[in-house]
Amino acid sequence: MKLMATLTLAAAAATLAAPAMAQFKNGEDAVKYRKAALTVMGNHFARVGAMASGKQPFDARVAAENAALVETLSKLPWAGFVAGTDKGDTRALPEIWTEADAFKAGADKMQAAVAKLSAAAKTGNLDAVKTAFGEAGQTCKACHDDYRKD
Amino acid sequence: MKLMATLTLAAAAATLAAPAMAQFKNGEDAVKYRKAALTVMGNHFARVGAMASGKQPFDARVAAENAALVETLSKLPWAGFVAGTDKGDTRALPEIWTEADAFKAGADKMQAAVAKLSAAAKTGNLDAVKTAFGEAGQTCKACHDDYRKD
Repeated sequence: MKLMATLTLAAAAATLAAPAMAQFKNGEDAVKYRKAALTVMGNHFARVGAMASGKQPFDARVAAENAALVETLSKLPWAGFVAGTDKGDTRALPEIWTEADAFKAGADKMQAAVAKLSAAAKTGNLDAVKTAFGEAGQTCKACHDDYRKD
Repeated sequence: MKLMATLTLAAAAATLAAPAMAQFKNGEDAVKYRKAALTVMGNHFARVGAMASGKQPFDARVAAENAALVETLSKLPWAGFVAGTDKGDTRALPEIWTEADAFKAGADKMQAAVAKLSAAAKTGNLDAVKTAFGEAGQTCKACHDDYRKD
């Protein structure tokens, strides 16, 4: 029964990985891609954050542009979490794959939160941006705490 | 006269670098950002290329999505070319800053070419995608030849 479950999981993982893997030359390439997508997203998220925290003066247009970029970029990294890529130049923990449903739920939550941030930024209301930024930041932290090596 | 030109150039570079630098903690962060943006862009460009070359079956929707991402991403790396960041973990040549106008012209040409690629992909016409992909690829190569270490 346990072997059967393992085989079913392996088959499911292979099915999931197949279309994603087509995007990448190999596992190393997938790791490089997902890290790059998260780096660019983090940079633009931080630009909104600098305004949300008052470190930079609030410029509604700049906030909206950066939040829109974060929303676009938030859809990208996940394809790079190809099965078996918890090795090498990565801080990804194996739980990403052994707890795939929970990881996906976290990723979905983040994407929903940054979509809300982007919508908030479009209103030009700094208080709305502050609230949405805080909520989005929590979704980043939640996955980093659970699925990333210190 | 030469000193004057150098000082003017340095002042201009400082002016240009100031708003860009606000996006980055330091030069290392700027290098990491621009490389990451180019990595993600390159991945999605290659996905269009795989269809343009017939290595992957043509899927108009996937081509259009990826080309649109390339167009969005093509605007990002340039902010990361902060003056003085031809050092460290980068293949950027100093000519990027000593020939700043020519480098900018090349960057602009690439952005125009990938905007055309995105427009071509939206039509769903594979021949148009092939032509636009080839032209965009030439603009990538031109800057890599001139401004990137082997």
